[in-house]
Amino acid sequence: MDGLNMSRRIRRTPYTDRVEQVGVRGFSVVNHMLLPKAFATSVEQDYWHLLEHVQIWDVSCQRQVQIEGPDAAALIQWMTPRNIGEAEVGQCLYVPIIDDQGGLINDPVLLKLAEDRFWLSIADSDVQLYALGLALGRGMDVRISEPDVSPLAVQGPKSEALLTALFGEHIREIGFFRFGWIEFEGRKQLIARSGYSRQGGFEIYLNGSEHGPALWDAIWNAGQAHNIAPGCPNLIERIEGGLLSYGNEMTRTTNPLEVGMGRYCSLDGSVDYIGRAALKRIAERGVDRQIRGVTFDGGPVPTCSKPWPVRVGDQEVGTITSAIWSPRLGCNVGQALIAQPFWEPGQPVTVQSQDEVLRTGTISALPFA
Amino acid sequence: MDGLNMSRRIRRTPYTDRVEQVGVRGFSVVNHMLLPKAFATSVEQDYWHLLEHVQIWDVSCQRQVQIEGPDAAALIQWMTPRNIGEAEVGQCLYVPIIDDQGGLINDPVLLKLAEDRFWLSIADSDVQLYALGLALGRGMDVRISEPDVSPLAVQGPKSEALLTALFGEHIREIGFFRFGWIEFEGRKQLIARSGYSRQGGFEIYLNGSEHGPALWDAIWNAGQAHNIAPGCPNLIERIEGGLLSYGNEMTRTTNPLEVGMGRYCSLDGSVDYIGRAALKRIAERGVDRQIRGVTFDGGPVPTCSKPWPVRVGDQEVGTITSAIWSPRLGCNVGQALIAQPFWEPGQPVTVQSQDEVLRTGTISALPFA
Repeated sequence: MDGLNMSRRIRRTPYTDRVEQVGVRGFSVVNHMLLPKAFATSVEQDYWHLLEHVQIWDVSCQRQVQIEGPDAAALIQWMTPRNIGEAEVGQCLYVPIIDDQGGLINDPVLLKLAEDRFWLSIADSDVQLYALGLALGRGMDVRISEPDVSPLAVQGPKSEALLTALFGEHIREIGFFRFGWIEFEGRKQLIARSGYSRQGGFEIYLNGSEHGPALWDAIWNAGQAHNIAPGCPNLIERIEGGLLSYGNEMTRTTNPLEVGMGRYCSLDGSVDYIGRAALKRIAERGVDRQIRGVTFDGGPVPTCSKPWPVRVGDQEVGTITSAIWSPRLGCNVGQALIAQPFWEPGQPVTVQSQDEVLRTGTISALPFA
Repeated sequence: MDGLNMSRRIRRTPYTDRVEQVGVRGFSVVNHMLLPKAFATSVEQDYWHLLEHVQIWDVSCQRQVQIEGPDAAALIQWMTPRNIGEAEVGQCLYVPIIDDQGGLINDPVLLKLAEDRFWLSIADSDVQLYALGLALGRGMDVRISEPDVSPLAVQGPKSEALLTALFGEHIREIGFFRFGWIEFEGRKQLIARSGYSRQGGFEIYLNGSEHGPALWDAIWNAGQAHNIAPGCPNLIERIEGGLLSYGNEMTRTTNPLEVGMGRYCSLDGSVDYIGRAALKRIAERGVDRQIRGVTFDGGPVPTCSKPWPVRVGDQEVGTITSAIWSPRLGCNVGQALIAQPFWEPGQPVTVQSQDEVLRTGTISALPFA
């Protein structure tokens, strides 16, 4: 970890003042905005805490691209291989967005607010500019904007108890990847049962930055009874859980079929979208690499900020995209794009981490057991 | 400055290894890539050095959006209000890119490589996605890509002497905002007389990451005779020089006429582009705020990472977008969007910096004298 030079270009969030008060020590930058990534405790301590208790995460960097108007659904369908025709208002859908070659542009969550109004809750790329270009180029009747909406995640097994106490029993009824509404400071706010962990929880899509500190304080104070801690997407938990990160596991050079998103790709011709012909060709030919887990030894690894070669004998069969020491499994865990025919779980490999240590490992399924 | 959490998503550059060897202490993130922003010496020491000697800057984050094909020129003209019809091969043009409302999407430098091949050397937003959306939406015959090109800047009064010694006398002939070619390791490389300072210099658009360390070393070694130092865009020099920064001085909520780019906006109907009708309306009505300098007292300011109100009496007339202490002027200097009728140089104002100190100041023209 090195220093991050601050400026207005690296946008603060409605919660940054609070995050600083509870001792944030490091950030990442996502969508030109601060994402807290380190607090006083270690990633390992945070991991155990997340598995047992409840955490509050400033994930405002999951910006919303709002698309509304008569052609809103048509534009979104054009951007994603997933058939969104059956989606209901109140539903969240994981929708890969691809280019004309099938390359991944983003992997947002789509929230259907109305038949003609949607949010794309995005990973780290300017989906708003892509959507705007498509709409202007094709002359579609839509309005595209970034509303003043800043998600705050509450994650961990105690999150339901905490949020029920605070906002009412009705949120128990919200199904996984569905959203409902709470009232806070006289304003209706969207709450979804979702989040970037496998430990359960909710995301409140706060509309109105001015309510940010009060929302944080309300959850923080009520959370004291539940051993709440400040947190952030936890790298150990994410890798073990098989959650992918745009920019790490996938980029424009990766297609959805390589990273386990085949079930989100309609290839039967029932819907049309950008990149359909390319994806169909890829599916017919078959992909020659796929995302896999890798376990490997040699003691805790350094931060993965470069491609680490994965080899079978002398042959490079892939690169690690994310990696960290797993205290639960007692080895390093990583995600990697692995070439055929070396992607079968159980395949022995070596991993060369960026400290130049050669490590012995094994291909694994995702998520890790 | 806080910690920056590294990952593969925050891309390293061909020079990051070298930048680390010479003691980088902090980065910013631009276009999902590391931009070195702090070395062992202070911003103030770097400032004086830049004004007298020569510096090597890793500005790989100025990514190139390559647009080529029969419709390349038409697509670029559609994206910018600047008339590019007269541009010559070998020329660099500063081209604001705007949306349909006239809002700024980016302010890249356009390099015309051939009649049907261009690079947009971009500031911090995904112009590639905007261009791709427009091209797909309109069905234009272009290929859009991000080539493996990583600019390395050599800035400061001794840069010509240094690079001439290294690459030959012919680079003296390259005019301001023109480019030529050098040979390095058997490969032709583009070199432009340009850069993000007012101290003169060049940018080498290195094609081929594998040549990065050698190029850095060649310049570094030859630079020892010229008192070379590692550097980066210098905030004091940039603000004094009136150079704008996308994401700080301008965003989608700012139009080119507000930030002194009127001379790059064709409004006479000779070219058509996205946002022309909106810009024309804005021009006819007149803008109600403009970019200005502000000098103000109260001792060196903290880092500007929030909007700082600029007031006349009790009235907020603008916000500071960037600010720092100027050792040469002996006061703080800032840039700000200032409302009419308070934008005249000499107008007294107060500035409230984020340490809550109230500071007395004066509106100034840009660049500062």
